[in-house]
Amino acid sequence: MSPGSGPHTAERRGRPRDSGTDSAIIETVLRLMEEGATIGALSIERIARETGVGKATVYRRWSGKDALLVDVMKSLEETAPPLKGESVRNDLVSCLEFARRRGLAKRSSAVLRNVLGQIHSNPGLWGQYQETVIATRREAMHEVLRRGVHTGEIRPGVDLDLLSDLFTGPLLARAVLRPDGSLEEGLQEGLSEQIVDTVLAGVAPPPVAGG
Amino acid sequence: MSPGSGPHTAERRGRPRDSGTDSAIIETVLRLMEEGATIGALSIERIARETGVGKATVYRRWSGKDALLVDVMKSLEETAPPLKGESVRNDLVSCLEFARRRGLAKRSSAVLRNVLGQIHSNPGLWGQYQETVIATRREAMHEVLRRGVHTGEIRPGVDLDLLSDLFTGPLLARAVLRPDGSLEEGLQEGLSEQIVDTVLAGVAPPPVAGG
Repeated sequence: MSPGSGPHTAERRGRPRDSGTDSAIIETVLRLMEEGATIGALSIERIARETGVGKATVYRRWSGKDALLVDVMKSLEETAPPLKGESVRNDLVSCLEFARRRGLAKRSSAVLRNVLGQIHSNPGLWGQYQETVIATRREAMHEVLRRGVHTGEIRPGVDLDLLSDLFTGPLLARAVLRPDGSLEEGLQEGLSEQIVDTVLAGVAPPPVAGG
Repeated sequence: MSPGSGPHTAERRGRPRDSGTDSAIIETVLRLMEEGATIGALSIERIARETGVGKATVYRRWSGKDALLVDVMKSLEETAPPLKGESVRNDLVSCLEFARRRGLAKRSSAVLRNVLGQIHSNPGLWGQYQETVIATRREAMHEVLRRGVHTGEIRPGVDLDLLSDLFTGPLLARAVLRPDGSLEEGLQEGLSEQIVDTVLAGVAPPPVAGG
């Protein structure tokens, strides 16, 4: 074994995997993606070199770039802050603010772009992105929307799938179609509130006559 | 700019460029992208081989892959059908239906994914995509929205930029985040109408008291 090929070549057997090295490799991929690299164009060799480890060290952990991308995706997962559960309107604003801050992060959008670029060569990757990232957020929002129907803030019979796209779509449009910072402009401070209030106004129950 | 201007050396020598070859090369790129290739991973050599021409034939027309991608983008441009101009609501539905059919086309979404993947290596490409594809559609919708404010279907003071994201965002969410055909399900037949009616209800002027 050549000297300098990494701290664990000699001590691998019987020892737990060094999670510091895992994180260092994932960090390298995130940095390179942020700088504009696509996972398709990155070689394991370059990833290893930029991390300062040997190629074998990477291959011992991941079978290839797609498997590595899955862990890169997971590394970005933050737990959404708990919702207050008082007003449906305010909880929706919190969901959108969480999504907006996420969309602001260069890392998340670089990962999204990379996943979208790799879908065709690995449809399973898309499934994992759905499960890891999208499904969880979607379910959190659906729960708030069901509560809104229950409390009477949203009229019954509204398609909740469409409703959640109405809330998140504008943020996505700004993140994907105008990647020039339209989510961060000072002007956009009240963006989430504006979206929630406009959409909620359209799905409120009709005013009760008489009163 | 001269009509039909583009990256052609052949014209300078007084020979009309063979537009059949241009289209054949563009068609090859579209087909390969539809099959899942990214422009970053495609070589000019492979593009030439699959078209049945020499590499030099491609390079005589385009300086490289990014320049070629610009013409691939342009080749997809369809003219939007003229709007009837009777009801703002119906014109908005037409705008959305046009966008929905576009999103259904595998070719458009393959090109969008490719452009998104190439932004970092060529920010100018994004500018061209904006000008060629996005700005035109956005302006068409803004015109309808301004008319809606004028006719009283939309209350004055609503942020038209946000409003157009509210209309197009849900389609984008379905095209980008659920590339499993959620734009084509039979169930989605009334999707554009549903989006337009929900959002319009939220931005209608308040009912006049008394009446």
